[in-house]
Amino acid sequence: MDFHETILNRRSIRRFTDSPVPEATILKLLEYASAAPSACNRKPWEFYVVTEEKFLSPLRKASRFTNYISPLNIVVCGNTRRSLPLQLSSYWIQDCSAAIENILLGATSLGLGAVWCGLLPQVRPQDRVRKILSLPEHIIPLALIHIGTPSEARPPHEGLDMKRVHFVKEGAPVEEDE
Amino acid sequence: MDFHETILNRRSIRRFTDSPVPEATILKLLEYASAAPSACNRKPWEFYVVTEEKFLSPLRKASRFTNYISPLNIVVCGNTRRSLPLQLSSYWIQDCSAAIENILLGATSLGLGAVWCGLLPQVRPQDRVRKILSLPEHIIPLALIHIGTPSEARPPHEGLDMKRVHFVKEGAPVEEDE
Repeated sequence: MDFHETILNRRSIRRFTDSPVPEATILKLLEYASAAPSACNRKPWEFYVVTEEKFLSPLRKASRFTNYISPLNIVVCGNTRRSLPLQLSSYWIQDCSAAIENILLGATSLGLGAVWCGLLPQVRPQDRVRKILSLPEHIIPLALIHIGTPSEARPPHEGLDMKRVHFVKEGAPVEEDE
Repeated sequence: MDFHETILNRRSIRRFTDSPVPEATILKLLEYASAAPSACNRKPWEFYVVTEEKFLSPLRKASRFTNYISPLNIVVCGNTRRSLPLQLSSYWIQDCSAAIENILLGATSLGLGAVWCGLLPQVRPQDRVRKILSLPEHIIPLALIHIGTPSEARPPHEGLDMKRVHFVKEGAPVEEDE
């Protein structure tokens, strides 16, 4: 799919058919995730791929979105042993967020749908996901992505809210806060 | 440009020609940014567009990357008055990171180059950018993006580090930590 079309067509999809996502497609999505930029190129991410109902079912409860039923979950985690040290360590959150966006866009480009379900900074959902996936302490679950063949359609994004755009010019009037 | 090609061709570009980026292109990049997902669709971002040398020059110093010289900076900020409340407030960082990734990919798709220069969580660069742009307290600068016509070429991303991929299966052996 064309880039322009992909980026505007990416919408949060919450209803899926039960067709499984082929392993080659999963690996393609993770190749896209890994192509995201990261601070000092640390690539501080870990991708947990879940397709078995035994794990999907408790993950649904853990993430608080019990009505999203998909054949594939990818849980994107930060690996604090790979992230930058000290005050720069939290860059892994930004790095992993870019990787997640690449997965969502990649899914759209391949005709799939996806939705980003946040875990961090919510303490309980994180702890539950940690237990279900038996994650060690240094692996922090950031988000769970549901992926599958869409069984709902949503219109593409349109336009730009110009209130969010600020041209910085010498002598320009100061904008009112919102 | 095709999506697959765009996502693998996005590399951090740090050298640019001095050709200005047309305003229509800037608005296209911000349309892509705004198409990013955000927690509860809050769209808690603000985009500061800088093309005047009077502002570009101090921003270079503020961001600590004084040797990146581009005709366009977009400073992506979080607006804490638009973000979710209380313990969910920090989701704006993930939302804005997805918007930044969309800008970087959009630049690539349009034949431009870009590099993401992190500000938050670094205190000093953030404070300096806040002063240069006269940002009010509730607007938090997350990152500065340099954008322009590339004057360097970098090879596309290739492959996937399978050490970062974990298939969660019943009865699968526990992996060694890295």
